[in-house]
Amino acid sequence: MKVAVIMGSISDMPVMQEAIDILKAFDIETEVDIVSAHRTPEKLFDFSKNAHHRGISVIIAGAGGAAHLPGMVASMSPLPIIGVPVKSSNSIDGWDSILSILQMPGGVPVATVALNGAKNAGILAAQIIGSHNKAVLDRIILYKTGLKEAVNIASETLNK
Amino acid sequence: MKVAVIMGSISDMPVMQEAIDILKAFDIETEVDIVSAHRTPEKLFDFSKNAHHRGISVIIAGAGGAAHLPGMVASMSPLPIIGVPVKSSNSIDGWDSILSILQMPGGVPVATVALNGAKNAGILAAQIIGSHNKAVLDRIILYKTGLKEAVNIASETLNK
Amino acid sequence: MKVAVIMGSISDMPVMQEAIDILKAFDIETEVDIVSAHRTPEKLFDFSKNAHHRGISVIIAGAGGAAHLPGMVASMSPLPIIGVPVKSSNSIDGWDSILSILQMPGGVPVATVALNGAKNAGILAAQIIGSHNKAVLDRIILYKTGLKEAVNIASETLNK
Amino acid sequence: MKVAVIMGSISDMPVMQEAIDILKAFDIETEVDIVSAHRTPEKLFDFSKNAHHRGISVIIAGAGGAAHLPGMVASMSPLPIIGVPVKSSNSIDGWDSILSILQMPGGVPVATVALNGAKNAGILAAQIIGSHNKAVLDRIILYKTGLKEAVNIASETLNK
Amino acid sequence: MKVAVIMGSISDMPVMQEAIDILKAFDIETEVDIVSAHRTPEKLFDFSKNAHHRGISVIIAGAGGAAHLPGMVASMSPLPIIGVPVKSSNSIDGWDSILSILQMPGGVPVATVALNGAKNAGILAAQIIGSHNKAVLDRIILYKTGLKEAVNIASETLNK
Amino acid sequence: MKVAVIMGSISDMPVMQEAIDILKAFDIETEVDIVSAHRTPEKLFDFSKNAHHRGISVIIAGAGGAAHLPGMVASMSPLPIIGVPVKSSNSIDGWDSILSILQMPGGVPVATVALNGAKNAGILAAQIIGSHNKAVLDRIILYKTGLKEAVNIASETLNK
Amino acid sequence: MKVAVIMGSISDMPVMQEAIDILKAFDIETEVDIVSAHRTPEKLFDFSKNAHHRGISVIIAGAGGAAHLPGMVASMSPLPIIGVPVKSSNSIDGWDSILSILQMPGGVPVATVALNGAKNAGILAAQIIGSHNKAVLDRIILYKTGLKEAVNIASETLNK
Amino acid sequence: MKVAVIMGSISDMPVMQEAIDILKAFDIETEVDIVSAHRTPEKLFDFSKNAHHRGISVIIAGAGGAAHLPGMVASMSPLPIIGVPVKSSNSIDGWDSILSILQMPGGVPVATVALNGAKNAGILAAQIIGSHNKAVLDRIILYKTGLKEAVNIASETLNK
Repeated sequence: MKVAVIMGSISDMPVMQEAIDILKAFDIETEVDIVSAHRTPEKLFDFSKNAHHRGISVIIAGAGGAAHLPGMVASMSPLPIIGVPVKSSNSIDGWDSILSILQMPGGVPVATVALNGAKNAGILAAQIIGSHNKAVLDRIILYKTGLKEAVNIASETLNK
Repeated sequence: MKVAVIMGSISDMPVMQEAIDILKAFDIETEVDIVSAHRTPEKLFDFSKNAHHRGISVIIAGAGGAAHLPGMVASMSPLPIIGVPVKSSNSIDGWDSILSILQMPGGVPVATVALNGAKNAGILAAQIIGSHNKAVLDRIILYKTGLKEAVNIASETLNK
Repeated sequence: MKVAVIMGSISDMPVMQEAIDILKAFDIETEVDIVSAHRTPEKLFDFSKNAHHRGISVIIAGAGGAAHLPGMVASMSPLPIIGVPVKSSNSIDGWDSILSILQMPGGVPVATVALNGAKNAGILAAQIIGSHNKAVLDRIILYKTGLKEAVNIASETLNK
Repeated sequence: MKVAVIMGSISDMPVMQEAIDILKAFDIETEVDIVSAHRTPEKLFDFSKNAHHRGISVIIAGAGGAAHLPGMVASMSPLPIIGVPVKSSNSIDGWDSILSILQMPGGVPVATVALNGAKNAGILAAQIIGSHNKAVLDRIILYKTGLKEAVNIASETLNK
Repeated sequence: MKVAVIMGSISDMPVMQEAIDILKAFDIETEVDIVSAHRTPEKLFDFSKNAHHRGISVIIAGAGGAAHLPGMVASMSPLPIIGVPVKSSNSIDGWDSILSILQMPGGVPVATVALNGAKNAGILAAQIIGSHNKAVLDRIILYKTGLKEAVNIASETLNK
Repeated sequence: MKVAVIMGSISDMPVMQEAIDILKAFDIETEVDIVSAHRTPEKLFDFSKNAHHRGISVIIAGAGGAAHLPGMVASMSPLPIIGVPVKSSNSIDGWDSILSILQMPGGVPVATVALNGAKNAGILAAQIIGSHNKAVLDRIILYKTGLKEAVNIASETLNK
Repeated sequence: MKVAVIMGSISDMPVMQEAIDILKAFDIETEVDIVSAHRTPEKLFDFSKNAHHRGISVIIAGAGGAAHLPGMVASMSPLPIIGVPVKSSNSIDGWDSILSILQMPGGVPVATVALNGAKNAGILAAQIIGSHNKAVLDRIILYKTGLKEAVNIASETLNK
Repeated sequence: MKVAVIMGSISDMPVMQEAIDILKAFDIETEVDIVSAHRTPEKLFDFSKNAHHRGISVIIAGAGGAAHLPGMVASMSPLPIIGVPVKSSNSIDGWDSILSILQMPGGVPVATVALNGAKNAGILAAQIIGSHNKAVLDRIILYKTGLKEAVNIASETLNK
């Protein structure tokens, strides 16, 4: 029940921090690292091939531009991989990040979330754990109740 | 360890069949149904609110055009939801299906796969189950070995 | 002769306020609320199923990103639904909002206006009421005369 | 309680026929004509300025490419105008038709439906009439029940 | 030998001013006006039908969003019409302006220039006049020489 | 009063033929040639620099993909250049052809028409000549009357 | 002076064959293989790390969809890598292939050619060799002469 | 072993400087100039036809908007040409620059790098030289080691 949060560059950290924060809120252990598909390919190999041996259940990988990190991890790890397209400075409005993560070939899926959607990546990781862990599932149900109440409060404030 | 495969219209079946087939190959039980967000909203509610009480672990939802099914199921179920953008006849080259499934707001993730990527949705569901089920994990590792061998055979044929 | 103006999030208010203001200018009663398809699905159901019993004639619904609110209301209400794609912070230049509101499947229309076009949504609601209400129709004709005069004044100023 | 269905070219007829057919099914009177913004501008003027004097309640206008017909009718008629972007042979995958109908400036709305969505244009026209006509509203509610039953039958067939 | 420069809104003036300025530099007489296709359709008709009777040779029309002005003028005037897509505040990155001006149907051309390319619209109008007016043609040749020299000076500065 | 119609490749001929045909219908002399910016740059230079000395008034240039022909002719000729984006087999849905012709830098305009809009390029060339040639202007006015009558006949047929 | 032509799948062969053919015409030795970034990551590593030790000068890599092969080879090889975006069946009009090859991060370039542009990839590889090999350079100059003559023959045929 | 870095306008210099800087770091001689395809076509001809006679091995050409410079140089020079799409002020989010450089017709390749990717253009030029120059190849291998170490340092900092 541990989630790895990796990213292609330290510059992705402000976006990816949201995944770490929400996983903490769900009381799920995380490890965080920078693994660059293009600059540290050996580390990519080691990380991807061994993550499931080190007690990791889910991997969240964020990257921008021609974002190969999530797909390359998926090619080598049997775990569910969640891809976060990051709208980095070298990205064309995020389209390159989205398409190079989403459009994986048959056989090698990446669970893609919205552009800069690291928070949702964290929640999805929690849901994956919750699918077989009653305590985490209950926290997700509670979280959804919280979302509802926030809207209700806004609604009441509006109509006062 | 049961996966629900739902779709917005019977016309999505040729695409979604690939999810059912691969899950069968992974020896994972499936249930299949048509649930239309726009034409059967009550069924959508019932399905979404009760799936996790009926022993379902993962939900795969496919839809085309303004595809609201995966996101609406995600709004009501605590389970991991995998969305398959379908390039239906009323779709603009698939862009509408992709964006209306992928770009979910913070708090309500959908694990989106490639356009018409139902096969990958099935594999991702297996990986989610495999993240806490050794037998399924082993089948995924075996499947990846198969992918590799298929390439090797093609490579050898080419160079003979 | 009452128009409901709803939105997915309080953050849509600055855009949606223009609908409220122009309806006020047309002397048409409005009610305003926050109804989130993804965070308050039960409220969405109650609202959509009962609006036409509560004396509402037209519903204006604004949302951003994977914007499911207008389409989901349209799936449950027999009233004309006007959708306003909002260019929210989590939107990809507005394309996601537009396509997930516009590209509704056959049987469930949403009358879509321009990106951030809440003002036009209000005018369209007035035109719908005006189609069977002479007093409102006259105000629309008057409004169009005003648009013309504003251009004429600018034209004269330019050529002085 | 009469709906005008106009189009820019006779080649739009196969798409626009669906609007005529569904309006007939709703027992709503229609008139049909070809009015080209670019080839018959005088007819455009006469039609737009007089439609509301001739007992027409709603205008459905379909056009492709740089589609100016719906917007130009909207500039001269106080009635609600429904625009149908047609994917004509000279269109770039329909994007030109959609954007030149949808993105109307403030003050002059066009209620835009999906690409080639003439059927939905007809239903929307019925909903506009139904917003103040109990008999038509009841037919819309009935129609929605029909949509639901069609899905249920497909669902049962699938699970037999 | 007079060029009319019209635009849909006074807010297009900062862009369109460049057309006026360059025409002045080419010593070509201009008239400037605001003609809104959507807000002043009668003025649009009068202007378009009479421009060639009033000694105008070329019409430059700028507009943004669902930009119908250039195409509607072209539908009623036999003169060459130059369309300037303006990236107005209500435009989606300019795509709507471009496509609704460029993609005119067969029979009704608009000579489209780049997004916000009012300067080039002015030069094109000069070239049209220059195609049968030796004095203006000579000025265009001179202008091209100037372009060349500006590059040469920059090149020399760079390499010093 | 001669129009040159050039194209980048013989494969553009089926599209460009429409320009030649309509110019013939307007009784305007044409010359036709293949001039490839990328394969015959010297011919491009000779052609562009001398066209206005050889009695040519307007140049129509069609090309597909990264279409440099119209812009390069415009860089060397003082005449008005009409660019026809051709949706060739190596084009990405025509977007590359459109953008590489339309988006010329300040100083060097190309009068761009719709994708595959060679017919409109021919009409635009006629309008440019007509702007200073009464006989051609009259033919354009006649042509527009013809467009109108074709719509009227279709309209009458529809309503019989 | 050997060029490696690799591709992600045997289904890319019809496109990639053009690279092999043109290199043969330039009398440059090639080796051809299938190396899948996603299905044979170990082979990818071995190939990329050793190509420059095996006498290979340039690598041409073709792939479709989320195309990671060219970029991943570039991350591990010091050689110039030419990427060919392939419009495979699982591609969204080729946009995903283009963007995931072109938009490489700073430090790891891929020389990208047009969609399905394998022929140009072969010519570019020849040019790279020709930049330091007089014999190959001469063949490129000869090839360019051939391109020119083909246009001239078409031009003459047209004007006969 | 000299690389020419040219650009269409002095305004491209801030982007193109990165190519010059990295080539300097690789100890490769450069020459820099402004060559505008549209404003200085004669200079374009002279430069392109003679570069390989002047000891230049690779040409890097940057341009924005309808960017014809790289392709036109490629049409006249037998050398490998690297194109840098520049996101200039007159560009539509860079799409025009990318497509008009990337989508070259068969026979005339341009090695295209990412939007504003001048740094990668410089590295690619070094790799081209390195493909037949052991000293430069070693510097590239060293550079890649540096990329790796920078990631490792960031990773260590993060986990401290």
